Amino acid sequence: MSLSRIHNFSISLDGFATGEPQSLEAPFGHAGHRLHDWMFATRFWGAGGSEGLDNAFAERHSHSIGAEIMGANKFGPPGWQDDPDWTGWWGPNPPFHTPTFVLTHRPRSSMEMEGGTTFHFLDATPAEALATAREAAGGQDVRIGGGPTVVRDFLAAGLVDHMHLVQVPILLGRGVRVWDGLDSLEQTYDIESVSSPSGVTHLTFTRKLGS
Amino acid sequence: MSLSRIHNFSISLDGFATGEPQSLEAPFGHAGHRLHDWMFATRFWGAGGSEGLDNAFAERHSHSIGAEIMGANKFGPPGWQDDPDWTGWWGPNPPFHTPTFVLTHRPRSSMEMEGGTTFHFLDATPAEALATAREAAGGQDVRIGGGPTVVRDFLAAGLVDHMHLVQVPILLGRGVRVWDGLDSLEQTYDIESVSSPSGVTHLTFTRKLGS
Repeated sequence: MSLSRIHNFSISLDGFATGEPQSLEAPFGHAGHRLHDWMFATRFWGAGGSEGLDNAFAERHSHSIGAEIMGANKFGPPGWQDDPDWTGWWGPNPPFHTPTFVLTHRPRSSMEMEGGTTFHFLDATPAEALATAREAAGGQDVRIGGGPTVVRDFLAAGLVDHMHLVQVPILLGRGVRVWDGLDSLEQTYDIESVSSPSGVTHLTFTRKLGS
Repeated sequence: MSLSRIHNFSISLDGFATGEPQSLEAPFGHAGHRLHDWMFATRFWGAGGSEGLDNAFAERHSHSIGAEIMGANKFGPPGWQDDPDWTGWWGPNPPFHTPTFVLTHRPRSSMEMEGGTTFHFLDATPAEALATAREAAGGQDVRIGGGPTVVRDFLAAGLVDHMHLVQVPILLGRGVRVWDGLDSLEQTYDIESVSSPSGVTHLTFTRKLGS
């Protein structure tokens, strides 16, 4: 069975997955790189990185994933839809290596990149997007890639089977919060927490049988 | 030196320290007892309880504490100021066993209870209240007892030396959030996280030297 999964989704102690304002120069606003330093320090990210708990979680990002769905705010800075040459933040060889579906109210033609990533642009509901991505994933799982609005929308629609959050011990105070409108998730998910020597805490949400 | 400390302050994953609405029947609103089940299961709370990590943290609640400061919303349900017979939630022998200062804009006469607790009522700023409580604490530490509004106010005023939060894996969605308006605390505090086998995560904030 093809699952929908969220991985390495980093939030501050006060629940923000990005700071503000988001721009070309500062994709995560005033958060800078602080939400993702834990990941940059792992072997998953680069040679010589750590191979402990953080890396074990980080590496799951790509296991058995056949497609990704991301929101418009993950694909580019505000206004990217007006730039016909924008091809994402990641250069010619993006780190997805699968069909990748960008949710936007202003779809454009698909873009085939190096390394197996092809960006497709969809104006669709979460359920429609997931069905399309599943089809493209060839029996493998679909990663819900964020940002926070997309994570919220898919959780609220009951379309997430597994979620891995990484809580970073900083307080951002403002930005986009992942939790708004998501009470009682513990009734649908088994939640595990494990603190890492690096200082972050990994939270895993696994959908309960029958939920 | 007399420190100001917060202990066993429980919050949901989304940062709420209480649900809503708060009432005589439901002091924590729709959160019920879920934020504190971890503590009720410890030996600190009662004979036969666990003696592991959760208990080690819980027992620090009373060590070297000479006074407590609490907010009006911790002392009673909305409107308790109109009831001259209200003496708190805790019966004749409250679990404080020290002078206990209740912040309220409508002070009343002090109440001497059994077991060493005397409730004093103060209409004062956080700094004034802390000075008064320190005086009463006889060289010992002062516990900032909550609720969330009081915790926020004391943190914002730079009046907290140590804070122990307990993050419970539930999503409340609404209530009173402890984090609002508190960005960048990590610049002032060393933050440690440790997950417990019970499922909660203990977060300790220790004021950095010179902060």
